[in-house]
Parts: sequence; structure tokens; C-alpha cells
Amino acid sequence: MVQTMSVLEFNIEDALVEVAKRGAETIGISLPTGLKRRIFDFVHPFEEIGCKVVVSGKPCHGGCDIDVELLERVDVLVHVGHSKVVPVENVIYIEPRSNVDVKGCVEESVKHLKGSRIALTTILQYVHKIDEVVSILKNKGFELLVSSGDTRISHKGQVLGCNFSAVDKACDEVLYVGEGGFHPLGIALATGKRVVVADPYFGVRVIDTQETEKLIRKRYGMIWKSMDAETFGIIHCTKVGQTRPKVVNHIHNLCERYGKKCIVI
Amino acid sequence: MVQTMSVLEFNIEDALVEVAKRGAETIGISLPTGLKRRIFDFVHPFEEIGCKVVVSGKPCHGGCDIDVELLERVDVLVHVGHSKVVPVENVIYIEPRSNVDVKGCVEESVKHLKGSRIALTTILQYVHKIDEVVSILKNKGFELLVSSGDTRISHKGQVLGCNFSAVDKACDEVLYVGEGGFHPLGIALATGKRVVVADPYFGVRVIDTQETEKLIRKRYGMIWKSMDAETFGIIHCTKVGQTRPKVVNHIHNLCERYGKKCIVI
Repeated sequence: MVQTMSVLEFNIEDALVEVAKRGAETIGISLPTGLKRRIFDFVHPFEEIGCKVVVSGKPCHGGCDIDVELLERVDVLVHVGHSKVVPVENVIYIEPRSNVDVKGCVEESVKHLKGSRIALTTILQYVHKIDEVVSILKNKGFELLVSSGDTRISHKGQVLGCNFSAVDKACDEVLYVGEGGFHPLGIALATGKRVVVADPYFGVRVIDTQETEKLIRKRYGMIWKSMDAETFGIIHCTKVGQTRPKVVNHIHNLCERYGKKCIVI
Repeated sequence: MVQTMSVLEFNIEDALVEVAKRGAETIGISLPTGLKRRIFDFVHPFEEIGCKVVVSGKPCHGGCDIDVELLERVDVLVHVGHSKVVPVENVIYIEPRSNVDVKGCVEESVKHLKGSRIALTTILQYVHKIDEVVSILKNKGFELLVSSGDTRISHKGQVLGCNFSAVDKACDEVLYVGEGGFHPLGIALATGKRVVVADPYFGVRVIDTQETEKLIRKRYGMIWKSMDAETFGIIHCTKVGQTRPKVVNHIHNLCERYGKKCIVI
């Protein structure tokens, strides 16, 4: 069964099979805010196979953002809308796939490519379109680089907001297929490459080094400003996929070394 | 050592002694948003006796609102600004006491009292003023009722936003000493009595049955409106002092009995 939700499709059937195979009686469902209005489409299939379902009320900002409190109270936690980032027992994923056509914006984007070796990247919703995009670009004479990324990356060419390991740095420039500015800006910052964005909703735009330099200058400005401060708070995220205690300790030590008051929050 | 923060005083010394007695090395500090700007006043005394301190970044809406995640990572959790509501191991409390004078507003409030048997109530900040208030009212010829409340109540005459067990219902009416409308409105709703509010900041006001009836009518209006709904979400709070799984199950069963779609969040 493939459930259609506007343009995002979800393969709920595989998750149902997996839940049944594990003999799970109570399941939790966790999903990003944008999908919460359609929650019954995810809850009912599991109730129909006899599961007791509890929905997470917490915000969910990625595959690394696991509701561990809910996980403790259920047999299986079904995480909708993202792919696996960190291995956590008893969590299964229902990934989204967009059925929006990307051919038009990809062909449009070709006009903006200046190099010949192109690293192809996208977000989870479009990973199944990678082959189609490769074929379009090969026909136009480009050399395509599509990399696997590290262990946090589930699909070839996939980027996360925090992870651009699937961008092959041997490229001349990067083509990003997908919506939004957050991911391609991250690619530009992480790689220093020019990024051409093929956005099926808002068309093609280019992120060049001028744009990233402006952002970096802003960030340095903020850091410069903070140097006058006498008291610092360090926010320590405790989410399973986002916690970085060593970095917190390092910053704490830096503060103390420079005689700043400091607390960990 | 009594630390003065504007008009709220905190006996940090007792907590320091308690922490030292338990040999706690790492402590967590949890406090309501209104006190967060003064966090260093609470952190430093504990750092000075050699503790490693982590501050809770979660909102904290009462003595029942324990940051259990932080509690798991520290030896002792110091909860600032509230009194104990539910017994949780390794949590100690630093209660606030207001040094604002209440004599003026209490004397003013006497003019608005109609009955002779008065139940005296207040919030944590003013519990140390109870004897003074009793003496003022006795001199004016009133009979005073000051009750202990149930196990969630730490001080005689104290009310919480959710607990009015320390209001003796044998009274003619209630005198509430303290700021805010939330607590006295709760008293009026819970007891059906007329409540005279002696507010040291905004003066005296009276909450009569007209006001509570209006609110109850509004609530019934919301319930009436919801009866057309086909889908219901039940928000299940999992905080240690606020979780009520039996009520959740009861509402869930009610929804199903009346053929409504329903999810627990």
C-alpha cells in the first residue's frame, strides 16, 4: 500500500510488516510538524493490525531526533519523514518520496552549470530521482559524481542539514535537487563550491562564494561581539543524535581559561 | 546566607549543607523562567563548594515539574522557586520568600469581607506571613481557618494552581494573600466560595460567583462546540507530577464508545 499525501508518498506497508514481524503490541509514532495534520493516515493502519498507538507530542527535526522517552514506553517507535541517522534499537523509519517532477528544473539548471565534473546531491524526498537526473546530465555531456557519504547517510547523494559527507569534493561544482535554502547553503559553506539549486517549486538559483562569505562575515561579527561578554551560557543538546559532550567541555574549559563566568544549560 | 533577589529571598545555605552532606559531586539546577536571568546567583555557591553544575534548559512550571532527564545525569537536582509536590529521590528544594509588606493590602481587604469565618490561603512566597495576617484579622474579630492540605502541600494555607486542598470549606468566604489571578480564580472554581484577593502589588479585588459562572459557561461552550468533531487528540502529559494515565484511558474509551476517531499524543 502506498499512501499519497499531497505530493509525498509513504510506504507504510513495509513498516506494518516489520511491526508485525517483531510482534509489537504498542507502537509510538514520531513525525515532523509539517505532517502532524495528517497523523490519522499513519495511526489507523497500525491500529487496524491491532496495535495500541501513542503519538509523540515533541517536535521532530530530523532522523537523529528520537523521542527516547516515548521509545521507553512502547515496543517499537515508528519515525515518519526522515531516514536513519544513528542506530537506535526498536526504531523503524517510514521515509517520504516526492512525486513532483524534477525534469523541468534540472534541465533549466544545466544552463547555470559552469564546470564539467558535477557532484549531484539531494534530500531524502528526491533520492529516487537520482538516476533520472544523472541520465539527463550525462546526455548533456557532464561527468557526474554521486557519493555514498558516511554512516549517517542512508542514500547515495543524500545530504542532511548537518551532514554533507555525500558531496564529492573532487567536483567543479555542485547540483542540488530539492526545495529550500538551508541544505544548499550548508553545502556551499561546507565545501566552498558553487552550488546550483534545482528547486522544483521555485525554480533555479545559484549560491556563489559571495553569498557564503557574507554569512561567514556575519557569524564572525557575532563572535566578535560576544567577546565583550563576561558571562556565557553553553546550551548542551541531550538528544540522542545531537549530543556533543566533548565540545561542551572544550568550550567550558575555554571560558574558564579566559576568566569568563560560564554555565552549562 | 540569605540571597536577596529583588523582593524574593532564597535560603541557599540549607541546600548547600544538604548537598555537602550527601557528598554530591554533580548537581543540576532547575528553575522557573522568571528566575533564569539570575541563574549565576544559584550556580556559583554550589561551584564554590566544589560541585560541577548543570542548569536545566527546560521550562519549569511548578514543584511537580521535575526534569527527570537531568536528574538521571546528576547526583542531586536542586529545584529553585517551588516547594515539594511529589516525593522524588535526590531532589531538594530552595523555596522563595517575599519580603514585600502585606499588611497594607490585608487591612484594605478587611473592608470587603462579608462573612465571619474566613479561610486564609496564600502562595509559597507568603507562607511565612500567615501568622501576621491571622493576627491582623483576629484583632478585627474574624474567625480564621488555616488548613494543612493534602500531601502535595508543604505549608499551612498554601495553594497551588492545581491544588486547593488547604482551603477549609467550612468557611463563609476565602481570603487569598498574594499576586496573580490564576490561584484565587482556581479557589473560587474549586470551592464555590467568594474570594477576596489581597494583592500587595495591585491592591484588593473580589472574585464572586458571577465571575466564575462566566468562566464555567465559556468552558461548557467549548465542550459543546467540540461535540461536532469527528477526530480527537488526547494530550497525555508525561511529567512526573502531572501524568494521569487513567484519565487518558477513560477519555480514550469515551471517544471510542461514541464512535469518534481518537489518538493519544
